[in-house]
Formats: sequence, structure tokens, C-alpha cells
Amino acid sequence: MEFRNERDSIGEKKVKKEAYYGVQSLRGYENFRISGLNTNIEFIKNLALVKKAAAITNEKVGELKSDLCDAIVKACDEVYSGEFIDEFIIDPIQGGAGTSMNMNMNEIIANRANEILGFEKGKYYPIHPNDHVNMGQSTNDVIPTAASITGYKLLVKCIENIKVLEEALEEKANEFEDIIKMGRTEMQDAVPISLASEFRAFALAIGRDVKRLNNIKDSLLTVNLGGTAVGTGITASKEYIEKVNDVLAGLFGEAVNQADDLVDGTQNLDKYAEISSQLKVCAVNISKISGDLILMSSGPRTGFAEIKLPAKQNGSSIMPGKVNPVMPEVMKQIAFQIMGNDLTITMATQSGQLELNAFYPIIMHNLYESIIILTNGVKTFVDNCIKGIEANERRCNNLVNGSIGIVTALAPVLGYEKAASIAKTALKTERYVKDIAVEECGMKENEVAKILNIKDMIKVS
Amino acid sequence: MEFRNERDSIGEKKVKKEAYYGVQSLRGYENFRISGLNTNIEFIKNLALVKKAAAITNEKVGELKSDLCDAIVKACDEVYSGEFIDEFIIDPIQGGAGTSMNMNMNEIIANRANEILGFEKGKYYPIHPNDHVNMGQSTNDVIPTAASITGYKLLVKCIENIKVLEEALEEKANEFEDIIKMGRTEMQDAVPISLASEFRAFALAIGRDVKRLNNIKDSLLTVNLGGTAVGTGITASKEYIEKVNDVLAGLFGEAVNQADDLVDGTQNLDKYAEISSQLKVCAVNISKISGDLILMSSGPRTGFAEIKLPAKQNGSSIMPGKVNPVMPEVMKQIAFQIMGNDLTITMATQSGQLELNAFYPIIMHNLYESIIILTNGVKTFVDNCIKGIEANERRCNNLVNGSIGIVTALAPVLGYEKAASIAKTALKTERYVKDIAVEECGMKENEVAKILNIKDMIKVS
Amino acid sequence: MEFRNERDSIGEKKVKKEAYYGVQSLRGYENFRISGLNTNIEFIKNLALVKKAAAITNEKVGELKSDLCDAIVKACDEVYSGEFIDEFIIDPIQGGAGTSMNMNMNEIIANRANEILGFEKGKYYPIHPNDHVNMGQSTNDVIPTAASITGYKLLVKCIENIKVLEEALEEKANEFEDIIKMGRTEMQDAVPISLASEFRAFALAIGRDVKRLNNIKDSLLTVNLGGTAVGTGITASKEYIEKVNDVLAGLFGEAVNQADDLVDGTQNLDKYAEISSQLKVCAVNISKISGDLILMSSGPRTGFAEIKLPAKQNGSSIMPGKVNPVMPEVMKQIAFQIMGNDLTITMATQSGQLELNAFYPIIMHNLYESIIILTNGVKTFVDNCIKGIEANERRCNNLVNGSIGIVTALAPVLGYEKAASIAKTALKTERYVKDIAVEECGMKENEVAKILNIKDMIKVS
Amino acid sequence: MEFRNERDSIGEKKVKKEAYYGVQSLRGYENFRISGLNTNIEFIKNLALVKKAAAITNEKVGELKSDLCDAIVKACDEVYSGEFIDEFIIDPIQGGAGTSMNMNMNEIIANRANEILGFEKGKYYPIHPNDHVNMGQSTNDVIPTAASITGYKLLVKCIENIKVLEEALEEKANEFEDIIKMGRTEMQDAVPISLASEFRAFALAIGRDVKRLNNIKDSLLTVNLGGTAVGTGITASKEYIEKVNDVLAGLFGEAVNQADDLVDGTQNLDKYAEISSQLKVCAVNISKISGDLILMSSGPRTGFAEIKLPAKQNGSSIMPGKVNPVMPEVMKQIAFQIMGNDLTITMATQSGQLELNAFYPIIMHNLYESIIILTNGVKTFVDNCIKGIEANERRCNNLVNGSIGIVTALAPVLGYEKAASIAKTALKTERYVKDIAVEECGMKENEVAKILNIKDMIKVS
Repeated sequence: MEFRNERDSIGEKKVKKEAYYGVQSLRGYENFRISGLNTNIEFIKNLALVKKAAAITNEKVGELKSDLCDAIVKACDEVYSGEFIDEFIIDPIQGGAGTSMNMNMNEIIANRANEILGFEKGKYYPIHPNDHVNMGQSTNDVIPTAASITGYKLLVKCIENIKVLEEALEEKANEFEDIIKMGRTEMQDAVPISLASEFRAFALAIGRDVKRLNNIKDSLLTVNLGGTAVGTGITASKEYIEKVNDVLAGLFGEAVNQADDLVDGTQNLDKYAEISSQLKVCAVNISKISGDLILMSSGPRTGFAEIKLPAKQNGSSIMPGKVNPVMPEVMKQIAFQIMGNDLTITMATQSGQLELNAFYPIIMHNLYESIIILTNGVKTFVDNCIKGIEANERRCNNLVNGSIGIVTALAPVLGYEKAASIAKTALKTERYVKDIAVEECGMKENEVAKILNIKDMIKVS
Repeated sequence: MEFRNERDSIGEKKVKKEAYYGVQSLRGYENFRISGLNTNIEFIKNLALVKKAAAITNEKVGELKSDLCDAIVKACDEVYSGEFIDEFIIDPIQGGAGTSMNMNMNEIIANRANEILGFEKGKYYPIHPNDHVNMGQSTNDVIPTAASITGYKLLVKCIENIKVLEEALEEKANEFEDIIKMGRTEMQDAVPISLASEFRAFALAIGRDVKRLNNIKDSLLTVNLGGTAVGTGITASKEYIEKVNDVLAGLFGEAVNQADDLVDGTQNLDKYAEISSQLKVCAVNISKISGDLILMSSGPRTGFAEIKLPAKQNGSSIMPGKVNPVMPEVMKQIAFQIMGNDLTITMATQSGQLELNAFYPIIMHNLYESIIILTNGVKTFVDNCIKGIEANERRCNNLVNGSIGIVTALAPVLGYEKAASIAKTALKTERYVKDIAVEECGMKENEVAKILNIKDMIKVS
Repeated sequence: MEFRNERDSIGEKKVKKEAYYGVQSLRGYENFRISGLNTNIEFIKNLALVKKAAAITNEKVGELKSDLCDAIVKACDEVYSGEFIDEFIIDPIQGGAGTSMNMNMNEIIANRANEILGFEKGKYYPIHPNDHVNMGQSTNDVIPTAASITGYKLLVKCIENIKVLEEALEEKANEFEDIIKMGRTEMQDAVPISLASEFRAFALAIGRDVKRLNNIKDSLLTVNLGGTAVGTGITASKEYIEKVNDVLAGLFGEAVNQADDLVDGTQNLDKYAEISSQLKVCAVNISKISGDLILMSSGPRTGFAEIKLPAKQNGSSIMPGKVNPVMPEVMKQIAFQIMGNDLTITMATQSGQLELNAFYPIIMHNLYESIIILTNGVKTFVDNCIKGIEANERRCNNLVNGSIGIVTALAPVLGYEKAASIAKTALKTERYVKDIAVEECGMKENEVAKILNIKDMIKVS
Repeated sequence: MEFRNERDSIGEKKVKKEAYYGVQSLRGYENFRISGLNTNIEFIKNLALVKKAAAITNEKVGELKSDLCDAIVKACDEVYSGEFIDEFIIDPIQGGAGTSMNMNMNEIIANRANEILGFEKGKYYPIHPNDHVNMGQSTNDVIPTAASITGYKLLVKCIENIKVLEEALEEKANEFEDIIKMGRTEMQDAVPISLASEFRAFALAIGRDVKRLNNIKDSLLTVNLGGTAVGTGITASKEYIEKVNDVLAGLFGEAVNQADDLVDGTQNLDKYAEISSQLKVCAVNISKISGDLILMSSGPRTGFAEIKLPAKQNGSSIMPGKVNPVMPEVMKQIAFQIMGNDLTITMATQSGQLELNAFYPIIMHNLYESIIILTNGVKTFVDNCIKGIEANERRCNNLVNGSIGIVTALAPVLGYEKAASIAKTALKTERYVKDIAVEECGMKENEVAKILNIKDMIKVS
């Protein structure tokens, strides 16, 4: 393999001759071989967009020569189109608040832009990764900016999918309007409820998640671009600072706003803690709903068996005919992962020190993972589970009719203690509540039947 | 000690003769001697308010006789005024989704109301704890309702205190407007910043917390009262269900709204997960700010010593003259507690099964603790720390002037590599950046001085 | 109310005349009105023991005069016996790494000892809280020492109770040896298992918890007493440092060992993180077991109903005759609390800075709570739940016999695909597996019966 | 692209003609496109080993024909050697407790073995994935077995690396034996300490982590192989159950033990919760140490600057000459990730229901990640940070000599109050403690010098 020599403040170092990344990228690579995972591609693309916006703005305000700008812009476009992905060699778990990632981009752009201009890679002439590609910028503003708008894109997609889940649950509620089943509190037979109510409650909970995430998603469009190192904009020209976000907005296709206070915008990452928390709240709902689906579909013969989840794959390598609730199970695991990721994000966001939070990489790594697995998860959950759920109406009816919990409806008439006595007798003698009521309380059969009308019991005012 | 005999479904049991609680309370007490802590008093009062509202409404709609209602209302008023507090004997960590707590209240009210009417305690005649005090109610709606509105009251107070913290930080920012200090990123000397910017960034972060909590606080005024056991309102009269929340609102003094869907409102507790999460985000900010105050006040001689926290107590039992940053320390601990409590709440809220979440008690116990320690914490933080913070202006100046990080301002002029070389020489030779710049780059002294004008460096556009 | 004037480095301050605490305690009280909770009484007693050990040792090595020592020892004995508890006024959530708590003790002892010697409270003569009561000590060694040995005492009791739970579960396993029930994987009918196996698996898991906690409990007997401020023993005499732990051991009644490296012993709190983690693992097991008990006892008519938990209280204020699984519910909540507390402890232990972890108070507050609620919880769990669990043998048998999962035993004979086809037919036609097998596969009835012998299926080799 | 038709219980489905995976794998792939990540390769290899052990054992006990066994073994060997990796298409985040992963392996082995025997892929003849490759097995024993022994291998390597960290820290301690620096408690100047003590305390903490992990690693060698579906060994022959673990041990090269109770071994995953917790305790130590390195190396001019971390890369894209503590930063992030992963594992392990924990996949996914990033992290931490740390002895000396904290040594002689007064004067007048002591207390200069001898202060007895 052929190499070229490069040098930076640390010293000289061999770099693969054909590489577009340079010496600083290579050091970052060698220092941080941690997870073996790749950086999110959308993030790389958006970072290229930020670099492009910076170059265009710097040219516009007279800081960057047009020919250098053109070459940089062309290189950025190539990265944005998906080229050079393999040249991004920094582990997503990295020290340095993203400097390695930023320099990886700066070096690739510089080398490619110089190549476009007919110069050699590794010489950083006429375009220098710091002086030109990173002009008027700092890791501390470009990385968070690219990360934040990437988060926006990912979150918008995620919310769309969650919305689809809400609708699918609501559809099921409509489908199950007439099915009455036993309600259970603390897993003990309680009083009847409609299967529609169950699914409607699920839909409403997920609907609140949609609202929560919609309410915060725009915070990701407010960025600290222009603040450079600590929010004071040092090294950037005044005009650049004023204009760069608008240029970026034009390229990105969404309003991108500069934070009102760039110092605050640079050092405080509470918006990520908030977004992660709201994803966690969504995970809470999804975990609860998934658990309920597992309960209601338990069986087929020794469980509740009130609903049937669609069989999407063999459930067992050993037990023939077994079908398992694999979709709610994977959703619960996604929920657990999001909850764990939220803790990582919590710990990292509260660990900022003074002008910077050095733990940006792990925050974004976890936030992206949470959003992505949730996005993918709810999609397969809808397609491969929710839509195909069937009610086992006969079973639901049988359980309700044989239950003791319906004695509750007698309590307002007979008093709690008498009703409790009927319940105990019914349980002990394995008979129906209605029969005991007639026998023990001298009530007439039709009178009892009226009070114990199940349909009346499930009417929510 | 004298006892009376009481009996319930489980059997007969001796109860202290003078007790207002009854057999069911006593069983709950004996089953749940877990934490040894007391139930929040505001919650007890608000539960009495709910019982009063239910009685009045039941009377109004013709379900409860006026004389019984009057006695119940009188007993509720006494509890609300703080009487019988010692009769609430159930541990806040309890099984049964709050049934023991509810029965504790029902029995106290029944016994006291009967006493008012001239009857004996323990006989539950003419007023029965279930049939009359709990008329048209279930643990599953009254406990969450009382808990939720109590949370509202506590949270409003908390937000007020956090708002005061925001203002105190903003005042400090104004006070420190002219003080320039060294900015640090990743704890390494970076570029200058004003002390005002630090405190303004703190204030802005806390301001966002105020907004977040304000945005969600009203969700605590939406309750499931009227839903009874599972949200279908079983045992409650239609009219009662329609009116009881308005009656409660009148007593409570704030709008109390019935959830649009009472089944959802009974089984899904995501609002508590959300509120706890937003408290956690606030804790993230408070932990970060507290950490910064500890850093900036470190010293007095071997640390940063840029600010001085007010000395509120001797710092050490052994080291004379030592003053420690006790207030930021306690705030960090409060933050850690809130984060831990948030996990408990997360686990409990996602563990609901079907029509009910049986883990309501631990959720409320942790939510209240988080709100209360935050409320108290920020108050003492403002009074005993923030307000008295002083800047060490001379120290700040010295650090900035001697720093190397200001070389950054030379980079746009000299290029990154040349500037880096100046930085290295300055560090190695222990000299000033400005002197090296003049010597090594042939720049004029006044030219360098202009570029290195610290005041220009801290101007955020 | 009458007051006396006291003064310390901060200035002068009025203290209630009859108070034994002094000015420094009062400042701590006023700074830290956070939780409103009390300090653990065992901890206060053990801190008195540490003070006593220090005084005795100092006297022995010639640093403290005998008469002063005697008075201090007498005052310590009084505190140990439970006097002056109300004089300990510092909130358990406090800044300053325990200095306020230590000074609260030092002032009470000093004032009481001076009183014993015939001098006035508040004058700190002849016995001074720092110079005599705190002689050779620092907050940084006495507070951790008292906290650690207190933790030991609490943990030993906790392990005893967990051990009783293990035994109770094992007894149930023995009791249920002959009861065959349906095994469920992923909540779907799987293959038969004995009820004994379920409870034995529970017992074995809890048995591992006993081992884990036993393995680490002694780490709490290794303390940093003698290290004073940072582990170097500054201000303490060499002889005192060598002897004080043995003196303490004598008083405490257990071997108390000095850490091999007192600097490490002062700044690193990983042992608390470990103990809390192992409590959390126990909570994991308890949560799982409790969940299983809730599942197996679900019903009585529309759930699994394989076991019956003892009815310890009415389950509902509205639904007559309902009995809820309140004991497993409270255990799950205890588990959630322990998990949340573990997070608080994790965050605090990793936040130590250099020579000290300032967050000791919140660590101990959470550790004690976790241990105490677990201790109390498992006791009531055993007494009020486990011991009284009954099997519903008939129901267990019916479920197994009607199940489809037993088709698994046919797979080795017929192949997975044929067996799966039988399972599907059985499910669809609502018939027995054995009948389908005879019909569809030409097997003889007794042949099928032999293969489908349930008793053979549950034999673990 | 060409396809073949396959069918399973769910129905018919097209599979890529050349694929070795089959219809069940494909369903699993389609159901679980969640994270886009790959399954750990070591795990795949070890699962192949388990399949091989099962085939050999089944052949040995007469259940499996020799020719079929030979073909299966050959196919397993190929997988073990790294072939067919791309055929493993199941997302690591999957529902079904690993059944999809197990069937993916069963199908690949079956297709490849049939191919070896001259038969076509997709026909599953003569070798059937369930009847032959999965003979005597269940997902519920083979997946946990392969996962557990994989964890062992990964953990052993991890412990080795942590041990190297311990040694590197100890070496530094030895190197810094004579360097005295200021000790700080609560970030305030306290009393002197040696730099060696700091690093020794670090080494001792990490040494405890090595012990902790060593103590539990063998639990990963105890597996539930032979228990099949629920631990009763259903479908497996008695002899197979007795022998299969020994066969596996022979292939794996380490003792692999069968759990004493296979039901317990199948349903309880507390060992994973424990291992993850101990990794978390290690993370606590690493986070604390990393934080201290960041503090001590802060500067170069406006921080503590007591040590210098090796410069491994440029610290900033904007600030020339800046070198950041990137290695401790990445370690802190690894620590946060491990803590988050531990929460995910905690939630998943406590969510098991009855005979199985369906959340095995997310547990192993997180456990592996935690182990791997810790393994890689500590390696680069040692190589690129710890080994190159240098002390700034002059700076350390200057800070100690100018400090006020040394006044502590005067307290035993002058009393706490007098010493405090000296401290205050020194601070106010910006003079040396020793000078004030001579002036204010009439002590002789050499007397004071003797007491304030720094070297004496750092001697730990």
C-alpha cells in the first residue's frame, strides 16, 4: 500500500495515499476504536450541508475567494450525494466533542476540493481544512448544528410513524365497538368493559405522544451556528454570523434559526434531554400497550385468549404450532432500549462543564438510535401486528358472563356488604352471581337481569 | 388499652377503641409497614375534598340523604382542617393501588360522621364507609384525582420558586456584565467570555425549565373522577358523573376537568412520566449549573477562584477557614434524587396492566418527593448562594491576559498553523502570546494589540 | 423563647437557650431544609460510638485529658441510648459531605459534656466541639465510618429476612411437588411443568441474592477512620490512627478494619455502588417473582387462577368480594424504588472529585432506604403472602389436559411439521390433541397416551 | 433474481434461490428491521458450536444417524470458520426470545448440510432444520447457552484489559512517588497529598473492579443446555441431556457446566443483571478517574495544570494549539453508555414472565456492547493516555506552598478557632500562612516551619 506523509501539531504521520481523509482523521480513528459502529449517514450529509452553507456565506461576505468556494461547494455536494462515505472513519463514540468528526469532514472536503482544482491530496493547498473549509466555524457550532437538524429530520419521520400507530389503534377501537370483555384491575376480574375502550385508550395515549413530540421537534431547528468556539463568534465575521443560518435554511429546506443566545446555545443541551425524555414517555406507553396485548392474547387455551395477534412467524423451534407475540415483544425491547438510552443522555447532558458539553457524541449516538429503532419499530408493529389483530368475541362473552365482578352493579342496590357476600357464595359454589342474587336476596329474576345487563355496565357517560 | 371488635370480608379484628380508622385501615397498616414514612398531608386534605365533593354531588342528585351528607361534609371539613392526621396510618409504599388509603379515609369519615350524628364508632351506622362515604366512587378514581390535584398545587409552588432562581441568575448576569473571564471548553483554556454570559446562559436554561413545567402543569387538573373502577362509571349515577368535577373545582378553587375518555384516564399514567421527566430535565440543568459554580469557585488559591460563593457555614470540622460550596452540592444531590425518582416513576408507569396501574402509590410518592425537594432546594439555593455570589474580577482579568487561548483571534489573520506555532512557543517559553506574535510574525505591536483586544472577543453578534 | 448567642467563623447567631446543638448545626439546619425527613437513628447512634472510640483512643495515647474524655464518653453513651434525638436537626439531604451532621454531633456532645462537667451550654469550654470532640478526626472519615458500619447492621438484618423468603419459597416448592400445571413461554401455552418447579426456581434466584449480599457485606466493615481529611491522617497522632479502629470494633461488637489505603478509602465509594447494585439484582428477582404470582393468581374466573394468594384485606372499595394481589404489588413497588435509588447512588458515586465525594449524604440516604424497605418488604411478603399461597390443583390439571402445547412431546416421533399440523387442527376444531393424533396419524390410543403422559413431561433429568 | 418457494406453518414464501437461510429466517428478517445492526460474530460462531455439540451428542446416544450428523457437523464447522456470515439476517433487536436467530442458524445448517449430501437447498431433506439440526433443543436453551459462553469469552478479554489499566495506574503511582500536590475536598483547597496517592487510589479502585468481574465471570460458564423449552428437557433424550454439556465443553475449550436446576436456569436471568451491574460499578470508577484527570490537567494556564496528558490529536478545529483531554472524555462517554445499557438490562431482566424471559435479545445486545466498548476503551485509555501522563512538579509545588489549607496542621497546636483566624487573615491579606502564624501567635519561625513541613503532612500511617 502506498502512503503519503502528512503532519499536524502532533507530528508527522503516514496516510494512505488514496485517502481523502488526512492525518487528523487518522489520529482520531486510532484513538477511538471503541464501538466499531458507523456514524449516521444523514448526519454526515447534513454536516456537508453546513460546510457548504459556511463556504457560500463566507464567499458572499468577502472572506473566501470564489474559486476556493466553488471547489469546496462541489466537494460538499459530492459528500451530500453519498460519496466518500467510507472515508468517514471516526467511531461514533469519540472524545473531543466532535472535533475528530469535524476534522474528518474538513480534511475530506479540503482534499477533494484541492483535487478538483488540480492539486494533490495531503498538501492542503490552496484549500486548508481549518483556514478555509472550517472558516468562521468551530467544532462547537458546526457539529451541534448538523446534529440538531439531522435529529429534526429523523424525528419528523418518527412522528409520522407513531401517528400511523395511533390511527391503527383507533381503527381497531372502531372495529371492536360491540365486543364486551371482562375488565381487570390489578389482574383480578373487575367489571365489564368494551374491547373498543381498550384500544381507544391505547390510541389516546399514543396520540399524546404524537403531540408531545410535535411540540418539541422545532427546538431542533434552532441551532448555534455562528457562535464558533464558545458562543461569542470569535474568528467569524459579523456578517457571516448574521447570514449563515439563512443560507443553511435555504439548502436544508426548513427554517433553521439561530439561537437567541449563542453562549447558552453552545453549552446547554437540555433540549436533547427533553426530547429523549419525551421519547421515553412514548416508550412507557408502548411498553404498557405491548404488555396488554401479550396478556390479552395469552393462550390459546390456558390464557386470556380474548384477542388473537396475527401469526407472523413460527413461534418455536421445538413446540409445533406455537405462535408467539413477537411484535409486542420487540416493541417492549425497543422501549427498554430507549429508556436505557435516555439514562445515557441524562448523564451526559448534565455533565457539561462551563462553555461546552464534551459528551455531545454519545448524546447524539443514543438519541439517533432511540429515534431510529422507534421509527422502524412502530412501522412493523402496525403492519405486522396491530392491523391484523382479531377479537375472540365468543371467549370475551363467556368470560364476562361467568364472572363474579359484575356483582359490583348490585352494590348500589344491596349495599357493599351484601354484594360481597353474594360474590363469596358465587365463588365458593362455582355458580352464577345472578342466581345467588335471586336466591339470597329475594330479588326477582328480571329485576336482577336488568341490573346485571352487561351493556349498561360499559357505558361511559 | 381498650379495643372494639370490627369485621370485614376477611374476618373479625380488634381495633383501638378510640380510633377513627377501622378494621380495613388496620389491615392495610399491618400489611404495609414498609418505609415508616408518612403520607403527604396536602394529599390527605385533597382526598377529603374529593370525598366532600362526592357527598355533596350525590346529595344533589338524590342518591344520598341530606342528613348523612351533612355529617360526611362536616367530617371532611375537619380532616381538611388538619384534624385526624395521626389516624392516617397507611405507609405511602403500599399495595392495592391506593385502596388501603381510600378505605382509611372512608373509615375515618364514616366513624367521625356517625359520631357527629350521635352514633358509636366502629358500627358504621347509619353511615357506611363503602356505601355512603365512597358512594359512586372507586379507589381507582378518587385516589388519582386527589393525587393529581395535589400534584398541581405542589408543582405551581415549585415553578414559582424555579422562576425566582431564573430571575436571580439573570440579575447576577446583569451585575457581571463587564467582567471578562477565560472561557474553557473541555476544561482547557479556550477564548474569553464575559461572566455575564455564563450566568445568562444559566438563567436561560432555567427559564426553559419554567416554560416546560408551566406547559404541563394543567394536565394535573384533568382527572378521572366519575370513572369509578375502570372508567365506565359503574355504580355512579349518570348525573353524579356529570356534576362531580364541577363541585370539586368549586371546592378546590381551580378548574378541575374530567378526562375526555375515562378509561384512558384511569389506566394510562403517562402524564406522570412526562412531568417527572421534565423535572428531570430541570435537574439536568441544575446539576450542570451547580457543577460550574463549584468549578468557578474552586480555590481559594489552587483552583479557578473566579467567583466567590457566600460563606454560609464552616466548611470543615478539621480544616480551619475552609468554606465549601455546600449549596451547589446539595443542589446536585437533589438533582441526582430527582433522576433516580424519575427512573422509579418510569418503571412504575410502564408496568400498568390492562384497566389499572396498580403502582400508583410509588409513583405519587416519588413525584411528590421530587417536586418538594426541588421546591425547597431552589429556594435555599437562591437565598443562600446565588444572591450572594461575588466575582473575583482581578483574578478573572489575570487569567485571561495570561492565557494562550486568545491566540485564536490571530488565526483568521495568520492561518491556523502559524497561530498554533505561536501558541506552542508561548506555552513552552512561558511568555505572552502577543510578544511571540510580534517577534515571530513581523506584526506590529499595535496591530497585534488590536487583534487581541479582549473586549472585542466576547462580543456575541 | 429564650436564646443564647453563639459565634463561629461566619459570625454571631442566636441559638435556643436549651438547645444542645449549636450555631453550626443551626446554620446547617437553615441551609438545608430540603426533604423534611429525619436522619437514620442507627446512624446517629453509631456516629456517637465513633466519637466515643475517638475520645477513648485519644485519651489512651495521651492527646486528650481524662476528665474531658470521661465527660465526652458519657455524653456519647447518652446519645447512643437514644437521648437528644430531636437535637439532630440536619436534613438527610445536605451539602458539605456530612460536615453539618458531624458538627451537629460535635456540638451536642460538647454541650452535653460541658454540662456534665458543670459548665454552661454554648460556651464550648472546657470541651470544644472541634478541638476535643472532633480531635484527630475529620467529617471525611467519621461520617463514612459511622455510615458504613450502620449499613452493615442494616444489611445483616436484611439478608436474614431475604433468607427467610428463600426458605418460604422452598417450602412452597416442597408442598407443591405433585401439582402439574401448564408451562408458558412468552405467555403462550408451552409444555407442562410442576408448580414445585416454579417455586423452586424462585427460591434459587432469591438464594443467589442471599449469597451476593453475604459476599459483599463485610466490605462495610472496612472503614477509613484515621484518614481524617484526605486519607493522610493529618491532625491525628500516629498512635491514634493505629488504635482507633480496634477501639471502635470493641464498642461496635464486630471487627472493624482500617482500609489498607486510606486515600483510596476516602475518595472512592464504589463499594456503595456495588452494594446498591446487588440490592438492585435482588429487586430484579423479586419483581419477576411478584409478577409471576400476580399472573398465576389472576382470576378468580377470567384469569389463570392456578394459585390463590391469601386474602389479607378487601381488594376494592367499590367491587365487593374482590381480593387483590396486594403483597406482590407492594414488592414490585419496593423493587422499583430500589432500582431508582440505585440510579441516584450510581450518579452520586461517579461524581466524586479528587480527594472526596461530596455526595455522601444522598448515597447513604438512598442506600439505607433501599435496605430498609427491602427488609420490611420481604418480611411482610413472607408472612402475609408466600406462606399462605394455595394451589388450585383442579384448575391446573384442567388447563394442562386441555392444552395444545403437549403436542411437543409428539414431535420427536412424528416430526415437527406433522406435530404442528395436529396442533393447528386441535386449535381450529377445539378438540384434544390426543384425539387428533389418533385420527390423523394412525397411532394407537395407548401409544399416544404413553407419549402424552404429562408426568413424564415434567421430569427434569 | 431467482427465487425458490418455501413453506412453513404461516404459508408459502419466495426465498432467494442461492440463499442458505430459509423461509423462517426471512420472516424474522422482515418482521424485525429495527436497528440495522449486525449480530455479534462470536455469538454466531458459538451458536454453531452448540449445534455441533448437539449433533455429536445425539449421534452418540443413537438419536441421529451418522451420515446426517457428519453433514451437520461439517456445516457447523464452516459457519464457525466464518463462512455464511451474511446469511445471518436477523436484527439483534428481535421479538421471540431468539427463535428467529435460532431458526436462521437451523436453516443455514440444514441447507448447507443437505447441499453437502448432494441435495437441494430449500427442501430440508434429508436434514430438517427442526427435527435434525434443532434435535433435542429449544431456542430457550441453545440461544442462552451460546450467548452465555460468548459473554464469557468477551468478558475474559475485557478483564485482561482492565487489569492492564490497573497496572498502568500503579506504575504511574510509583513514578509520581515524590511529587507533592494540593489535595482538594469539595473542590476547595484542603491539605497536601502526593500525586502518587491519587494514582494509587485510582489503581486500587480499578483493582477492585478486576476482582469483581473475575468473581462473576464463571457464572457465564453455567448454562441451561439440555433444558429445552422450559427446563424440563422435553423432546431431548435423557442421555443427551446428561452428555451434551461435556461435548460442548470439549469443543469450546472451557468447562461448560449444566445448571443444577434447569427450570431456574431457563427463566431467571439475574446473572446478566449482576454482570451488567458490576460493569456499571467499573464504569463508576472509570468516570470518577476520568473526571479527575480532566480536572488535574485543566489549563494550561487558567486551570489546575498539575499533570499533562499526552497530546494525541489537535484539540480544536478553531483554537490553534489547543490540546483536549479526549481520552478521559471518551472514557466518560463509555461509562455513561454502560450505565444506560445497565438500565436496559435491568428493565429486561425483571420483565421475565413465568417459564421464560422473552427479552433475551436486548439483554445480550446491551451486555455485549458494554463489554466491548469497555474492552476497547480501556486499551486506548492506557496506550494513548495513562502511559504518557506527566507531572508538572513545579506547578504542584507552587500550589501547595502558596495554599492556605496547610493551616490545618496548626490546628492541633493552636486550636481550631485560632487556626481559622490565621487562615482568614492569610486569605484576606494574600500572604503566607506561615508568616501570619509567626506574627499572630508568637510562634517561632522554625517551630512553624516544622509543623508546616509538607512532607510530614502527606505521610499516611
